[in-house]
Amino acid sequence: MRIALLGGTGDIGQGLALRFARDTDHEVLIGSRDPEKAREAVDSYDAELEDRGVDSNIKGFINEMAADRADIVVLSVPPYHVADTVESVEDTLDEDTILVTPAVGMKGDEDGLHYHPPGTGSVTELVAERAPDEVPVVGAFHNLAADALSDLNTNLDLDTLLVANDDDAKETVRNLANEIDGLRALDVGPLANAAEVESVTPLVINIAKYNADLHDIGVKFQ
Amino acid sequence: MRIALLGGTGDIGQGLALRFARDTDHEVLIGSRDPEKAREAVDSYDAELEDRGVDSNIKGFINEMAADRADIVVLSVPPYHVADTVESVEDTLDEDTILVTPAVGMKGDEDGLHYHPPGTGSVTELVAERAPDEVPVVGAFHNLAADALSDLNTNLDLDTLLVANDDDAKETVRNLANEIDGLRALDVGPLANAAEVESVTPLVINIAKYNADLHDIGVKFQ
Repeated sequence: MRIALLGGTGDIGQGLALRFARDTDHEVLIGSRDPEKAREAVDSYDAELEDRGVDSNIKGFINEMAADRADIVVLSVPPYHVADTVESVEDTLDEDTILVTPAVGMKGDEDGLHYHPPGTGSVTELVAERAPDEVPVVGAFHNLAADALSDLNTNLDLDTLLVANDDDAKETVRNLANEIDGLRALDVGPLANAAEVESVTPLVINIAKYNADLHDIGVKFQ
Repeated sequence: MRIALLGGTGDIGQGLALRFARDTDHEVLIGSRDPEKAREAVDSYDAELEDRGVDSNIKGFINEMAADRADIVVLSVPPYHVADTVESVEDTLDEDTILVTPAVGMKGDEDGLHYHPPGTGSVTELVAERAPDEVPVVGAFHNLAADALSDLNTNLDLDTLLVANDDDAKETVRNLANEIDGLRALDVGPLANAAEVESVTPLVINIAKYNADLHDIGVKFQ
């Protein structure tokens, strides 16, 4: 498969790109609004992977071209860019392209971060509302610490949680997520269950803030 | 210490009573609105513990008397009884009694359970609003599966998350929670961070619903 990481120059995009490139045989496409930035990111990811003896196959494009070439399009952009990023690539999407959304809306104050969903109930459901009707949307990769993903020396032993209304698309993303070493994908049902998944993201950040021995943590259900 | 479990005849009360009795030296008081039901529960918990060679020290009382005798009062009641339970025992509470709240508001539909907090933002903050000002309130034990707690054959390897504005009270509950075998207490800051903690409860129930191999699960941060 071809996996496009829109906003793939950002921290969660970097982490997913490195893990997909190292642990799977899929082709990774880095998308950015600026194709030059995409190619610069590819050079740095390639160098990182080459250092570890990984023969990587990453390419850089403007977001629209990355999405147009991909079977799976990951919206690895900040939550306030999710809606316009979907709009910018919607002509390239169809029923055979799976749109994956890991973004979470949060608001910070002196106590910590708080879950702050849009009016649709969750960013995941916002993506589903804005995407063309025939495009399957899967919420995934919400609760992973970008720094832990990006540091290939970190051995993951974590879960990622999936929500989707399209069972085939969910299964495809589940298999993809399970290909990442140390990651286990769990089904959390339809898109309507996204809010509780997303709100784990501010929680893990708050736990890291208040427990000096825990950094860049994720979650495991057992 | 003396620990009162108000509504201690219910499922989460049972689980905490058995674990506190087996794993700690504290005195456990079972509270109920009906003292006869409290004593029946004590008999059944005693029998369960005796079978395992544990010399238990549990007593049963009406809620008010249990709260009056206790250093730590756990509101192990359903969320819709939290406010009236606090009201019923408020004359027995003072600055030396720690009020612990594990309840979570949820609403179910065909998709699963959804987090459904009261207007205060969380049940934990509702308790703090309703309790006398001088009484320290700690949110804890929210995300534990009652059936896993109650089955003493289950070896826990789980976290419980603490929120409180009173650091001394939080530390006392943290030490208490850490005394339960296999449980690790993590600090999540002040009461204002309770909502993200509480919303893990519907999440773990949804995960158990959609993953046939996971039952009565809890959460671990790593």
